Amino acid sequence: MNRFANTPEPPYYAVVFTAQRTGSDHGYGAMAERMMELALAQPGCLGAEATRDADGLGITVAYFQDQASIAAWREHAEHLVAQRLGRERWYSHYQLRIARVERAYSGPEGRGRD
Amino acid sequence: MNRFANTPEPPYYAVVFTAQRTGSDHGYGAMAERMMELALAQPGCLGAEATRDADGLGITVAYFQDQASIAAWREHAEHLVAQRLGRERWYSHYQLRIARVERAYSGPEGRGRD
Repeated sequence: MNRFANTPEPPYYAVVFTAQRTGSDHGYGAMAERMMELALAQPGCLGAEATRDADGLGITVAYFQDQASIAAWREHAEHLVAQRLGRERWYSHYQLRIARVERAYSGPEGRGRD
Repeated sequence: MNRFANTPEPPYYAVVFTAQRTGSDHGYGAMAERMMELALAQPGCLGAEATRDADGLGITVAYFQDQASIAAWREHAEHLVAQRLGRERWYSHYQLRIARVERAYSGPEGRGRD
């Protein structure tokens, strides 16, 4: 599985979600999988990258065409439920940042796209 | 240890580095630790968040006051060596994106700062 997002040339938007999981699952695994699937199916979603270490610190970065797509995803009914459960059960702390991607590089094939 | 970056009100910049590690260490652990320490000591660096899963997919997000601070960090002599070793040894693939953070929230204490 390719876990990198195959994003187009900038500009586009990134939603950076850094979150510390609480200890117990409480349905988290299934919901996280469903949210990733749903996010990727959102109009304007360009892909996502996600990882979490053994201590439960995770970073997910989802890429979107524009701010309107991010706003629509934020208000998606199933996602609102997940957000509530995240606050109540799954995360001891999280930080969410919305950013406009201005430049992108990849490698090690070449620095490219400067 | 607090693994969240205590960033100020936006706007500021984020460097999002998603990378797949190759299998063997080849000095990676020590260099990664040194680079995190160096980055955090850079003028204009506001903090960083990093995590990597058991399959070796890592995401590091470093936050900077402005693009000039990012450019200076990119050209730092020790960091240039690390970048070269990253391309040659440590990463099978990476993507680097530079983005301007426009909004930030944290929780679950409250959504705040909209």
